Amino acid sequence: MKTIGIVGLGLIGGSLGLDLRALGYRVIGVSRKQQTCQRAMERGAVDTATTQLAVLQQADLVFLCTPLGVMAETVREMRPHLQEDTVLTDVGSVKGWVVQTIAPLWPNFVGGHPMAGTAESGIESAQRRLFVGAPYVLTPIETTPSAVVDQVEQVVRPLGTQLYCCQPEIHDQAVAWISHLPVMVSSSLIHACLGEASTAVLSLAKQLASSGFRDTSRVGGGNPELGVMMARYNQDALLETLRCYRQSLEQLEQLIQQGAWDQLEQELLETQQGRPEFIK
Amino acid sequence: MKTIGIVGLGLIGGSLGLDLRALGYRVIGVSRKQQTCQRAMERGAVDTATTQLAVLQQADLVFLCTPLGVMAETVREMRPHLQEDTVLTDVGSVKGWVVQTIAPLWPNFVGGHPMAGTAESGIESAQRRLFVGAPYVLTPIETTPSAVVDQVEQVVRPLGTQLYCCQPEIHDQAVAWISHLPVMVSSSLIHACLGEASTAVLSLAKQLASSGFRDTSRVGGGNPELGVMMARYNQDALLETLRCYRQSLEQLEQLIQQGAWDQLEQELLETQQGRPEFIK
Repeated sequence: MKTIGIVGLGLIGGSLGLDLRALGYRVIGVSRKQQTCQRAMERGAVDTATTQLAVLQQADLVFLCTPLGVMAETVREMRPHLQEDTVLTDVGSVKGWVVQTIAPLWPNFVGGHPMAGTAESGIESAQRRLFVGAPYVLTPIETTPSAVVDQVEQVVRPLGTQLYCCQPEIHDQAVAWISHLPVMVSSSLIHACLGEASTAVLSLAKQLASSGFRDTSRVGGGNPELGVMMARYNQDALLETLRCYRQSLEQLEQLIQQGAWDQLEQELLETQQGRPEFIK
Repeated sequence: MKTIGIVGLGLIGGSLGLDLRALGYRVIGVSRKQQTCQRAMERGAVDTATTQLAVLQQADLVFLCTPLGVMAETVREMRPHLQEDTVLTDVGSVKGWVVQTIAPLWPNFVGGHPMAGTAESGIESAQRRLFVGAPYVLTPIETTPSAVVDQVEQVVRPLGTQLYCCQPEIHDQAVAWISHLPVMVSSSLIHACLGEASTAVLSLAKQLASSGFRDTSRVGGGNPELGVMMARYNQDALLETLRCYRQSLEQLEQLIQQGAWDQLEQELLETQQGRPEFIK
């Protein structure tokens, strides 16, 4: 495998290009905007880039790095141009919906999710070694040829990623817990505070807020489009985690209402002891 | 004012002693444990320390730095020993309950809350300049002599604190929002995750959790005794914020259930724009 196509030249696509070229691959980029193609070439993220999907006929493997919402139409458009044995993978942060949508369009497809990123986006934010130490989840299904999984693994392992393989639904439920639910929990915290009716209280709260509030509210203050994307494409898993979360919250609220301090301490002890399992 | 008493030689009491001695005050410490008195003297946090409250007859101003639960009995015990015009203040993180309890016992009392700390506790964790840049809230009530507020201000301002003055109830509602509610929100997140029934999902979630989960769960993984203390002594304000929070959460959940993506984006935009008001 020598030539790799990257469709969508943002933070992830551009960073993949930088690293893959350094590993010796020829990298062909495709973007809807000529200006992005130009910048990707100038930054060395691709050997060449164009707005025409037809160029992908040269690719042995294609990374689909567009927003989730345009993946299906992009694959339909590129399909006539690909060689039959070209391997296709994506980098979307939700896998059930993507795999259901793309796998029927291209048999040599396996879903993927490199869990790396920065607060920035776009080709200007692309960087070398973005994926070092980051989890990279592949989500083959029954019909995925094992050779396809092997080939994607061979390309992404040298990026320094930690590879995981699981069903798309397992991935989506796991990221709902540790990524999508925290956004909603954290956003609701900010929303509730902003709703405080007393100006004296709200104004003092803003003055006194420090690291505890800063950390708990951080992901709730993030990019609204990303938040909607999580909810839209991982709706079922997110709603399931929200239901469970609401139950945990109501239980804690009840203990406080009842003044059941020993039980409350027991609950807080369990979360104190349970957290390190999630924190490397 | 020359001599300052500090009752309770932990992180806050010890750190106050270190700074106040550096400012030229004579500092007398009182602790229940002889060993703590010894260490406080060795560390230079006090000029002298003893287990006997009678020593406070020499003090012009006393900082009450014990746990909330023993403040009332400590004041009852020290009362016979104090000079009539001795000023008393405390450093408890909840003010309504403290002021209601202590003000009737000592007229020259004003509640206070230095909002500084570390993850550590005890005399060994005491440090110089702990209060620099930190908010210090004083909570006088109608019956508090203004001279008492002035005298405490004169002592704590040179520590580098940012002074605020408000009613005890305003303080408690504000810290419920920015300190106590986040603990419960964050703890519920960990609790809900730990309840995931699928081993495959839970195990993957633990592997994939990164900075988003780490930050949102941090204060929920803290000291259980502190969490119970917040709930116990600030019960009403905390329950009020929990009720509002639950409403915000349910509203978000409903938008996701209904697939009301435009409205969801609007909500997330409001929290993105609102957060910086709390973050210096």
